[in-house]
Amino acid sequence: MTRESVAIAGVGTTAYTRDSGTTVLDLAVQACSAAISDAGLTVEDIDGIVTYQLGDSPRAVETAAAMGMDCPGWYSDFYDGGAGLATCVVASSMAIDSGAAKRVVLFRALNGRTGQRFGRFGAEASAANWQQWTLPFGLATPPQFAALWAQRHAALYGTTSQQLGLVAVTLRQNANLNPQALFYQRTLSLEEHQASRVISSPLRLFDCCLESDGAAAVVLTTTSQASDLKHEPVILGGYAIGRTPAHSYPPIDWPDHTTTFVRHLVDRAFKMANVELGDVSFLELYDPFTIFVLTQLEDLGYCEKGEAGAFVADGHIARTGRVPVNLNGGLLSEAYVHGLNNLVEAVRQLRHEAGERQVPNAQVGLVTAGEGERGGVLVFHR
Amino acid sequence: MTRESVAIAGVGTTAYTRDSGTTVLDLAVQACSAAISDAGLTVEDIDGIVTYQLGDSPRAVETAAAMGMDCPGWYSDFYDGGAGLATCVVASSMAIDSGAAKRVVLFRALNGRTGQRFGRFGAEASAANWQQWTLPFGLATPPQFAALWAQRHAALYGTTSQQLGLVAVTLRQNANLNPQALFYQRTLSLEEHQASRVISSPLRLFDCCLESDGAAAVVLTTTSQASDLKHEPVILGGYAIGRTPAHSYPPIDWPDHTTTFVRHLVDRAFKMANVELGDVSFLELYDPFTIFVLTQLEDLGYCEKGEAGAFVADGHIARTGRVPVNLNGGLLSEAYVHGLNNLVEAVRQLRHEAGERQVPNAQVGLVTAGEGERGGVLVFHR
Repeated sequence: MTRESVAIAGVGTTAYTRDSGTTVLDLAVQACSAAISDAGLTVEDIDGIVTYQLGDSPRAVETAAAMGMDCPGWYSDFYDGGAGLATCVVASSMAIDSGAAKRVVLFRALNGRTGQRFGRFGAEASAANWQQWTLPFGLATPPQFAALWAQRHAALYGTTSQQLGLVAVTLRQNANLNPQALFYQRTLSLEEHQASRVISSPLRLFDCCLESDGAAAVVLTTTSQASDLKHEPVILGGYAIGRTPAHSYPPIDWPDHTTTFVRHLVDRAFKMANVELGDVSFLELYDPFTIFVLTQLEDLGYCEKGEAGAFVADGHIARTGRVPVNLNGGLLSEAYVHGLNNLVEAVRQLRHEAGERQVPNAQVGLVTAGEGERGGVLVFHR
Repeated sequence: MTRESVAIAGVGTTAYTRDSGTTVLDLAVQACSAAISDAGLTVEDIDGIVTYQLGDSPRAVETAAAMGMDCPGWYSDFYDGGAGLATCVVASSMAIDSGAAKRVVLFRALNGRTGQRFGRFGAEASAANWQQWTLPFGLATPPQFAALWAQRHAALYGTTSQQLGLVAVTLRQNANLNPQALFYQRTLSLEEHQASRVISSPLRLFDCCLESDGAAAVVLTTTSQASDLKHEPVILGGYAIGRTPAHSYPPIDWPDHTTTFVRHLVDRAFKMANVELGDVSFLELYDPFTIFVLTQLEDLGYCEKGEAGAFVADGHIARTGRVPVNLNGGLLSEAYVHGLNNLVEAVRQLRHEAGERQVPNAQVGLVTAGEGERGGVLVFHR
């Protein structure tokens, strides 16, 4: 089966900053309005609204009300981290296919620096059930969990801090060409990466994503409607959401701490989209920490498990390399809008609007959402 | 358009208690397992899982893992209160229609008494954006917000505490016949209601729902598959989700504090289901507070705005009345499983399995989710 029915017709963002000076509701409205306008639509045309969040953002209907949207035909609020981007895209697609909504705006707004900071212990509402087995040992924050993956990868395959650093350096080079990135024109050398402080061994400061304030949004509609709008539609060709089989919830009882959900979903997404790995022009990987760029490259099949460090060191993920990764700079160097900013970049690349950082003749873009046991793989094309 | 494609094939619950003595993950697994078994299926047959919560429950994939489910084809975690029941049912329906999942288990698990108590200030993760305008005035908890509705209804229409009390008394009579209800065999008189303490004027203790521990689950699949399973399928005939138009987020800037989302959605749901009000055999209304039974009766069209107090006093919502309401006892007298227990009762009624509290010849049941500016209306039939 090939999906061709739903497409992205508009994208919008706020400025990405370290101090927005405003509310998340205002950020949400700014991003949604920009995306609707980018599609050549007005708020009256939108009849569906959806978001994902971790208790740090306005609800979908609250944002709808603030924009002056009338009663939407469909709305949903997802409670999830990075994986929530995929469930939102899939849900929007289903809502459009079912006729519940014709034009959906999907947003993520957060004051990730001046509001709820995920990198700090206590950012989430309450300790999850499984944390009874981790908190007593001081294992509490996202960098600590990511460090477990990096340590395991190093132990099994000899992956080095320099190889992780080359992920950060490569994505920074992309951000240097992106006027919207927090690290626009601010270079990073491997030496600077190596000199940066350790956050949770082996992860250093520059192995960790930014904390930023900002919002992003996309407008989805039927491909046929999108074709009549302002921009060339970016078509959702295939998707898969789910979790790794036979794994318990992280970080307990994992038989394999180097393999992500991507390994288990990519074939399904490719089959739906009727594409192969060789057709993919670029990747927008969910990159909260450098280690997950390595694991996902392996899980997608670009190299064997354990070889992604060398793959990156060989220059293959650079903008001019075999498979360019995170051309906006990603969460590591553009901003942390919980993955939605990476999807916005995928749309810009597929529209051939990415300026200096454009991948020549980009036809198919792959976007991942989530980094551990659950998430989604999304395939878009022109 | 009439929807006939998706049906509920199984229901399951834990015991409802005031002290479960176990984790919400355990409750979730118990309820899901019971629903799957009730459908005549095993966990291997289930390929979709979904829940709604407010940061107080395991995630869908965590519950899937605990049950030994392999990689699901679809999962979602919704972040919402009572309205989340409707978004979950609608999303499950869309997932099944789209082919993303064949058999979905939908659950809600909470230790609402011994864990996170919604009735207390501070139960939610963090203050929402709009609360900057309410917290400084001491307006913080659900009963306080509900009291605003009751006060407005009283001011405009003369609705009395006795009329509210008759809602509580009627639903208690249903619970008295329900062995699973926390108030099984424990009667409530109007005098006892009137003597109970004021929680937030005019709402008294027995105008407020229970705080309880427990979980409930339903299994959804295609109607054709459900027809081959253990029980007669309960078909999702129609639905509508959305919000009141022209209202801001509660409780700010509402032009009308007596009308719920139900008024604006019921026609859409009825049209999809191809039924009329007179076809409805019983209601399972979202009933966190007695006032919302009155407002929803009016919004559904059983009487004019302001007349529901008299409508209830005339006995129309009793089990043997014109339109029986919440035959399980509802959130007021069975348990507070965030509305999902009311849906379970709708299924039992439509299967004609409700024992002493069975509505004769029940053919069509209407379930609401949410009580204020947003939510959903679901129409089920045999």
